[in-house]
Amino acid sequence: MNRTRVALIGAGFIADIHAESYHRFVPDAEIVCVCARREEHAQAFARKHGIQRWFTDIDQAIASECDVVDICIPNYLHARTTIAAAIAGKHVIIEKPLCLTLEEADEMIAACESRNRKLMYAEELCFAPKYERVRQLVGEGAIGSIYHMRQCEKHSGPHSDWFYDLNLSGGGALMDMGCHGLAWFRWMLGGKPRAVSVYAHMQTGLIHKGRTRCDETSLCVVEFEGGAIGVAENSWAKLGGMEDRVEVYGTGGVIYADLFQGNSALTYSEKGYGYAMEKAGSTQGWTFTMFEEAFNQGYPHELKHFIACVRDDTQPIVTGEDGRAVLELMNAAYQSARTGQKVTLPFHPKVSKPIDLWLS
Amino acid sequence: MNRTRVALIGAGFIADIHAESYHRFVPDAEIVCVCARREEHAQAFARKHGIQRWFTDIDQAIASECDVVDICIPNYLHARTTIAAAIAGKHVIIEKPLCLTLEEADEMIAACESRNRKLMYAEELCFAPKYERVRQLVGEGAIGSIYHMRQCEKHSGPHSDWFYDLNLSGGGALMDMGCHGLAWFRWMLGGKPRAVSVYAHMQTGLIHKGRTRCDETSLCVVEFEGGAIGVAENSWAKLGGMEDRVEVYGTGGVIYADLFQGNSALTYSEKGYGYAMEKAGSTQGWTFTMFEEAFNQGYPHELKHFIACVRDDTQPIVTGEDGRAVLELMNAAYQSARTGQKVTLPFHPKVSKPIDLWLS
Amino acid sequence: MNRTRVALIGAGFIADIHAESYHRFVPDAEIVCVCARREEHAQAFARKHGIQRWFTDIDQAIASECDVVDICIPNYLHARTTIAAAIAGKHVIIEKPLCLTLEEADEMIAACESRNRKLMYAEELCFAPKYERVRQLVGEGAIGSIYHMRQCEKHSGPHSDWFYDLNLSGGGALMDMGCHGLAWFRWMLGGKPRAVSVYAHMQTGLIHKGRTRCDETSLCVVEFEGGAIGVAENSWAKLGGMEDRVEVYGTGGVIYADLFQGNSALTYSEKGYGYAMEKAGSTQGWTFTMFEEAFNQGYPHELKHFIACVRDDTQPIVTGEDGRAVLELMNAAYQSARTGQKVTLPFHPKVSKPIDLWLS
Amino acid sequence: MNRTRVALIGAGFIADIHAESYHRFVPDAEIVCVCARREEHAQAFARKHGIQRWFTDIDQAIASECDVVDICIPNYLHARTTIAAAIAGKHVIIEKPLCLTLEEADEMIAACESRNRKLMYAEELCFAPKYERVRQLVGEGAIGSIYHMRQCEKHSGPHSDWFYDLNLSGGGALMDMGCHGLAWFRWMLGGKPRAVSVYAHMQTGLIHKGRTRCDETSLCVVEFEGGAIGVAENSWAKLGGMEDRVEVYGTGGVIYADLFQGNSALTYSEKGYGYAMEKAGSTQGWTFTMFEEAFNQGYPHELKHFIACVRDDTQPIVTGEDGRAVLELMNAAYQSARTGQKVTLPFHPKVSKPIDLWLS
Repeated sequence: MNRTRVALIGAGFIADIHAESYHRFVPDAEIVCVCARREEHAQAFARKHGIQRWFTDIDQAIASECDVVDICIPNYLHARTTIAAAIAGKHVIIEKPLCLTLEEADEMIAACESRNRKLMYAEELCFAPKYERVRQLVGEGAIGSIYHMRQCEKHSGPHSDWFYDLNLSGGGALMDMGCHGLAWFRWMLGGKPRAVSVYAHMQTGLIHKGRTRCDETSLCVVEFEGGAIGVAENSWAKLGGMEDRVEVYGTGGVIYADLFQGNSALTYSEKGYGYAMEKAGSTQGWTFTMFEEAFNQGYPHELKHFIACVRDDTQPIVTGEDGRAVLELMNAAYQSARTGQKVTLPFHPKVSKPIDLWLS
Repeated sequence: MNRTRVALIGAGFIADIHAESYHRFVPDAEIVCVCARREEHAQAFARKHGIQRWFTDIDQAIASECDVVDICIPNYLHARTTIAAAIAGKHVIIEKPLCLTLEEADEMIAACESRNRKLMYAEELCFAPKYERVRQLVGEGAIGSIYHMRQCEKHSGPHSDWFYDLNLSGGGALMDMGCHGLAWFRWMLGGKPRAVSVYAHMQTGLIHKGRTRCDETSLCVVEFEGGAIGVAENSWAKLGGMEDRVEVYGTGGVIYADLFQGNSALTYSEKGYGYAMEKAGSTQGWTFTMFEEAFNQGYPHELKHFIACVRDDTQPIVTGEDGRAVLELMNAAYQSARTGQKVTLPFHPKVSKPIDLWLS
Repeated sequence: MNRTRVALIGAGFIADIHAESYHRFVPDAEIVCVCARREEHAQAFARKHGIQRWFTDIDQAIASECDVVDICIPNYLHARTTIAAAIAGKHVIIEKPLCLTLEEADEMIAACESRNRKLMYAEELCFAPKYERVRQLVGEGAIGSIYHMRQCEKHSGPHSDWFYDLNLSGGGALMDMGCHGLAWFRWMLGGKPRAVSVYAHMQTGLIHKGRTRCDETSLCVVEFEGGAIGVAENSWAKLGGMEDRVEVYGTGGVIYADLFQGNSALTYSEKGYGYAMEKAGSTQGWTFTMFEEAFNQGYPHELKHFIACVRDDTQPIVTGEDGRAVLELMNAAYQSARTGQKVTLPFHPKVSKPIDLWLS
Repeated sequence: MNRTRVALIGAGFIADIHAESYHRFVPDAEIVCVCARREEHAQAFARKHGIQRWFTDIDQAIASECDVVDICIPNYLHARTTIAAAIAGKHVIIEKPLCLTLEEADEMIAACESRNRKLMYAEELCFAPKYERVRQLVGEGAIGSIYHMRQCEKHSGPHSDWFYDLNLSGGGALMDMGCHGLAWFRWMLGGKPRAVSVYAHMQTGLIHKGRTRCDETSLCVVEFEGGAIGVAENSWAKLGGMEDRVEVYGTGGVIYADLFQGNSALTYSEKGYGYAMEKAGSTQGWTFTMFEEAFNQGYPHELKHFIACVRDDTQPIVTGEDGRAVLELMNAAYQSARTGQKVTLPFHPKVSKPIDLWLS
């Protein structure tokens, strides 16, 4: 059977992780082209990853001979690219967040559904192997009923400029990182759990003053039907490298898991060395040295799953609907951060981007 | 110079820790009597700790030849005992929480002030040596300006029955444990920082169903003038032993500190053994074995400080006013937990106990 | 290009890990048959892993249409099976230890070399991703020159009975686990480093009294040319689950890495659950929960490497010569454990199995 | 009852720790004088610690009105100072190692014994509270019978020059740090256990090339009657701060304890700060921040114990005999490091200092 052909849209940080993951861990897929706005960027990426074709025009990339469009570009382009891909008859896997508005989300879902194309929302925390192990333990009844979850994702801010421009990103740390925790809480509770309310607090002006009006931190408390809560803490102002960890409290026990420091080697280097972990800063002195970062975050498992869904015509475990549910929670969070009140769900504001609900 | 004479009111879990701490670490103090409601209890405690006199009547104990009254009894007795001690001319150190109402707090403070008696609010986290080291680091500028603190204190529920009776305790996990985090946030920020608002979420019916109507968990988000926030997570439903840890995020770094697991030895015992740590449950298999628990929590430092204040006639670093401020925050938290809204401070409700604001 | 066909000899614990690793991570390979002494065992294994053919006779399995023979059977069968495979024109990958005597080792190497067949010594620690990260750091100069390494591999004893029978295994904890550390020290120092001497101490009669005369623990100190030493600690008497960790000290720093506890989630379960990690024992109370154990130990990387060597006609990074060098070190260790003296290398005793040097 | 008067001989790093420990934790003792060779040093120390008198002549300090002589000076002065103190009728507590030769040891012991003076060998690891907790667990039977202990003490080299001069110190990392592990193994096994043999390996020329001919690392394997072994690893070449940790393996379990990193707060500081832990080096980036270092290492408990022994006329738990036994083990270790053979005990070489046995 032939390999599934993937057009990779984007050539930045996350596209690089996808390319490595396909190459090393998804033998049934083949990246047939890459697309980046700047020619030299596209070319360099193609050369680095041994990809035969490269484009600077998204529509051309979509129109190329591919089965799947894998979207790794700024948030404001998510909806139009997904819809274009669906119209062109391609399956879509899209990086978080799904898009900027619930209206866009509905259109994206409809565009894929009506053409019978898969739309996978690429939430890698639903695949990160350590966290999946945690979910299995919970499923086995190891800790009774979950009543409290905490998920932290924190670092010192994204690599690319567009994240800091709220018109391109739609929001800051919450849109960039909070989406992970919110999706993961739903995944842990299983069976499309109904979120009842969201409370949020946000901060800005911490270490990126002048560069952004976006939220540099966000704290969300999501309450689910049945009473379990999820607390998502996110930050673009946390120095010392990436933090991604969870705590799951149940009536019969508790689980702690840490994807970065909790997997790493511990190094003391007088002179420093090349790379410790995502956004680690200096490598002199003590550092927590990561390995197999993509694997430990679940990217290979995620992409392998999607390629299998395409080949076997099955439904991904995280879909556009899940991405939409997360977007709704983020809208509610920005609203709550402004009002100081819990926002009850469903919540369908009319805004052009989530962060407007906080800043207005 | 003679030793300062302490009347210890109470003979339970916390009184035991105080007695051990005085005995081993506060040579300038001497426990001259202990008071417990039940005679055999008082007698056994006195014998165990080599205390010469014991009482079953609080007023008699207060009236005994002592300089200091150290109050380690249920919350609902705090105000009356403090006031009686002040009237009797004794200095008072009182276990958390200060009392049940702001009115009581004001009376307690006034009673001591007018008679020129010390009133120390015994918040041991302001003395726990690891946390004090954290505070010094912050004071040195090691992590820039604090913008986020988290403090967790969690276990599987108190030893004594009265905690679970909201008429005696005035509230659950928040009153019992949340007070620590709230006091500690203020201490970390220094200089009597002004709290602007409190948001809280609480849960009950988790593992103590039928035994209590109190909050078994509480999550408080306190916002301070200047924008820093403190997140206090507390639980009576966390199995596996005591958890007490902090995270302090600043614009120039971050500090993590863990008082129990983070200090312990790691043991695997096929057969089990006597005692691992506070509320640890079974000691078979893997356990985190604590040592010098009282010291690591700061009790000796706290009591030594108070005795020095009494002897040198100086002001304790944590006073009745601080206890009152914490009580105000807890009132606001219970109110918020009911309304789903941030409560702005100052907040002066008229209630007979804090938890009424949540349950009503 | 067709997939490389693998005959899997053995259907025990380690064969299971190989089968999972090929299946999930080595798309260029296909297990075409499995061989186990007992028919029902072979059949069950084949069914579980979707393998088309099964045998109970090793020679038949070798003679089947396969390119590679992957040997996962007791130590005393290693030499004859390897040689038979080579004669049949098959490439060989063989689990540790290489064999029981240096004479066997020489014959195995010659048998493969003369027929131009690959012989890979399957030392997974040379592939374990965290340890490989450590090796890269050292290569980058992060910690200066290595002067001391420590590698521990400890658990409560193997699953299968044959390990405990010194005639089948040739030795105990050293033969079973010590081989890992000894191979890894050589790999870390690179370039076929010359070992100068070995000192060893061993213990028996600890927790497997009556079941074995083998060494239940071994401690080896290997000295390399240039002065660096490696300390390998191994045990069949360590309760609480698998331990595999390293320490690497250099003149410019130090690295600590732990493959099991150091990657795991931390779980407290009142009721217990199915599986925590290799040989973990009870799962009630606190446990260190592992995930992706095969991956974290490097099995997929190891097997993928060998299949690539076969397909590209390149030399494996760990060969029969390396296995022989480790065997020589183990011989020297058993000798040293008896005499209480450092044994200098080269060391070519005439024995029918390494442990004889200790017990005689 | 009056306080016990202590003459503190020495004003260096360790004397500072003793002074702090007495002051904060041993109310029954009072440092009445300090002695240092250089006047300004003695004076500054006295001022810093509020000590009334200071001397530059040891004999004058000994002759002063004191009950106890606490010896914190270079190794080569240990014997003569102890004997002088005993002759002057003073009780002696002496820092490790006891002295340079077994003959000196015998004289010191005799000098104190004949005058009925206490001679305590100040091995703080017998008092370090975490390690004492470990010993209690073993005493309770938590891990069955001990068969293997490991103790590591490592840092980047001592503060003072005299350590590096083998004529003043008598040896390097082994004499400075190895003595701790060797004493602790004996303490853990209890009841004056008989050591059967010692094997050792040492290294030099690592990071203090040109500064010293002493052993920069030592690895000792001590075998005790009954078969348990102790492995002491010591280093002056380990960067990144002090390491002091133990592993205790028993037939029924295992215990791991770490005095420094395992108690510390974890800090990331962009700018750095004043002090992290003993010999930590830079405080920029990640550091392990210690607190109450003297307490956690057991100095207060040790000194309090000795003062109590003096006051109550009881025998210290670690005496000159224990210090002598450790010295014998160190002699055997140096001998073994030269010969590459286990040295059996008793071992009574005639040398002027232990390291001669290695270097000759």
